[in-house]
Amino acid sequence: MLQCSMNSSRAYIGNVRVASVLAMCAKRASVRAISTAKALIYERNGDPADVLQLKEQQMPEVGEQDAQIQIIAAPINPSDINTVQGKYPLQPALPGVPGHEGVGRVVKVGSKVSSLAVGDHVVPLASALGTWRTAGVFKAADWHKIPKDLPMAAAATLTINPPTALCMLDNIVQLQPGDTIVQNGATSAVGRHVIQLARAKGLKTVNVIRDRPDWDAAVSWLQGMGADVVTTEQKLKADLASSSLPAPKLALNCIGGSSAAAIAKVLQAGGMHVTYGAMSMQPLAPPTALLIFKDITFKGFWISGGWAKRAGPRAHAALLDQVVQHIQQGHLTPPQLQEFQLSQFAEALDASSTAHKQHKVVFVPE
Amino acid sequence: MLQCSMNSSRAYIGNVRVASVLAMCAKRASVRAISTAKALIYERNGDPADVLQLKEQQMPEVGEQDAQIQIIAAPINPSDINTVQGKYPLQPALPGVPGHEGVGRVVKVGSKVSSLAVGDHVVPLASALGTWRTAGVFKAADWHKIPKDLPMAAAATLTINPPTALCMLDNIVQLQPGDTIVQNGATSAVGRHVIQLARAKGLKTVNVIRDRPDWDAAVSWLQGMGADVVTTEQKLKADLASSSLPAPKLALNCIGGSSAAAIAKVLQAGGMHVTYGAMSMQPLAPPTALLIFKDITFKGFWISGGWAKRAGPRAHAALLDQVVQHIQQGHLTPPQLQEFQLSQFAEALDASSTAHKQHKVVFVPE
Repeated sequence: MLQCSMNSSRAYIGNVRVASVLAMCAKRASVRAISTAKALIYERNGDPADVLQLKEQQMPEVGEQDAQIQIIAAPINPSDINTVQGKYPLQPALPGVPGHEGVGRVVKVGSKVSSLAVGDHVVPLASALGTWRTAGVFKAADWHKIPKDLPMAAAATLTINPPTALCMLDNIVQLQPGDTIVQNGATSAVGRHVIQLARAKGLKTVNVIRDRPDWDAAVSWLQGMGADVVTTEQKLKADLASSSLPAPKLALNCIGGSSAAAIAKVLQAGGMHVTYGAMSMQPLAPPTALLIFKDITFKGFWISGGWAKRAGPRAHAALLDQVVQHIQQGHLTPPQLQEFQLSQFAEALDASSTAHKQHKVVFVPE
Repeated sequence: MLQCSMNSSRAYIGNVRVASVLAMCAKRASVRAISTAKALIYERNGDPADVLQLKEQQMPEVGEQDAQIQIIAAPINPSDINTVQGKYPLQPALPGVPGHEGVGRVVKVGSKVSSLAVGDHVVPLASALGTWRTAGVFKAADWHKIPKDLPMAAAATLTINPPTALCMLDNIVQLQPGDTIVQNGATSAVGRHVIQLARAKGLKTVNVIRDRPDWDAAVSWLQGMGADVVTTEQKLKADLASSSLPAPKLALNCIGGSSAAAIAKVLQAGGMHVTYGAMSMQPLAPPTALLIFKDITFKGFWISGGWAKRAGPRAHAALLDQVVQHIQQGHLTPPQLQEFQLSQFAEALDASSTAHKQHKVVFVPE
């Protein structure tokens, strides 16, 4: 099996290896087809630590429209956990391999594949392909080519959070430089991408986070990315008023409950409120007057099974290319990675549930 | 002061006179300008029974863009009560005259008015003009001409409920004959207009009402208007499934709370949920998954300060003309009226809060 040697500077958090990788896999010359692969497999839905097993399997034949892809890195996202639990709407047939996201390298292509070539670096265009494996045979059309020199941390986490942030800024309401958006959960991965992309587009961001012991550090961190206002749910109205920013046209909600209502209440008349997460597990409770008398619209946003499905693969691929350009232009800071082998899945799952938000837990299959 | 003699068949409910009026005011020949008028006036916000006073005033001069209009009939709507209470977003300057809706007759026009002529029957295009008076001088552009032979009950209640129903069916999502809509509060005035207009357009309606002692009568009543399914919040899912109707594209909510959530849950993916009332006084609590994974959009609808303001007076006038056509084609059954003079405002307010839903309380100023 191929192994990708990372050109990286390494650090440790506790006893967990953290990689800040600047370039992926110097040994591209060694690309060749693979005959067996290991994968994390689950035969029934349940808690991932209980139901996942590492298994080695023969690789299937590469059909004429297929590509054999070696997985370089695949993160653990909340949606992966929910998929194994059976709670996510996009489910693979069982027995299944988890992993909606990741970056791979093409090691063999079918006779009718022209979109990919051996050695290309690729990210999933489709969901639920199962990236928590060393390699697999997939439909070539389900993967999208990215530049080989993209930092691994950016490539491995390219297809969910950054396009979610970019698509919500570009495709829901018409925003002009100088316009304000308001969001909660601003320290989340999507929240941070929103701040950075908004700065690149000349938009102003009002960012709601929970009060916390290291408040000043959190504010500095977000301001360093471009946040214009950082506030709490309780201080939002006053801080927005004293900021002299125009009332927001767009609210981005990943929390729910009272936080979702708070960012709805400061929207301008006719504004748009978009829910893409539900961290508090509380439903929205929008006051009826906001709907009727202030003409606020409440929508949801889901990149994988929603937007991408409606927009089609061409528009989806174009969106991923835009994300790549923003990374190349230095607009987006990739997360730092905590790397685990597939056999370390118990530790990896544990780390993903407690990881510092600046770090992303990834499998680096060996 | 002019008095309009109604060509009506009369009935009594208890000791309240109920008119089923088929034609308004046979004595059109007696139209002439008016020098004094009585009005229900409030100098401060509060409970209408406490703050309203009947006062007689000199009529102001008719400016070149003005029209003097005699009020034939003006209903008591919940929004009128909320306006006097100070709870409605459209507020007249104080001292004010309540009444957003009604029908009048033009008795004098200014030298530059070409849109109206003496003798025309008119309904308000603008809100908060104050129709609870015998006559007034208004900007001519704030009123819209309607046919003189329109039944008074239809004319007096033309500008809020029927255009709300029509506009929600025509302008929010693209509906084709055979498509299903679901609504709660189906026995409300708007709910009944929705049923009747949907039938005229070949749309199927699923109607949620509260369980009640006279269930069979209520079902028959709504089915007589064209309701396809009449059900309760609890039975909605099962009754929709057994109806073989397609999943609804549009949900119309005037209740809020769990009822609003119930009609959201049966929408098809990508469906639209529209709130135009809040009878339960409970906020919506849409499950986040409906927003994110089922792509349901939640909007509000407000004809007076919302749609009409954005669409402009020309589109608003065209909408009222469409309502008139539906009435003339027999698609809409006007409410039966309970008539009161302005001096009987205490009894009228009392009747409006307890009136049977099939009857509308109107002032018939004398």
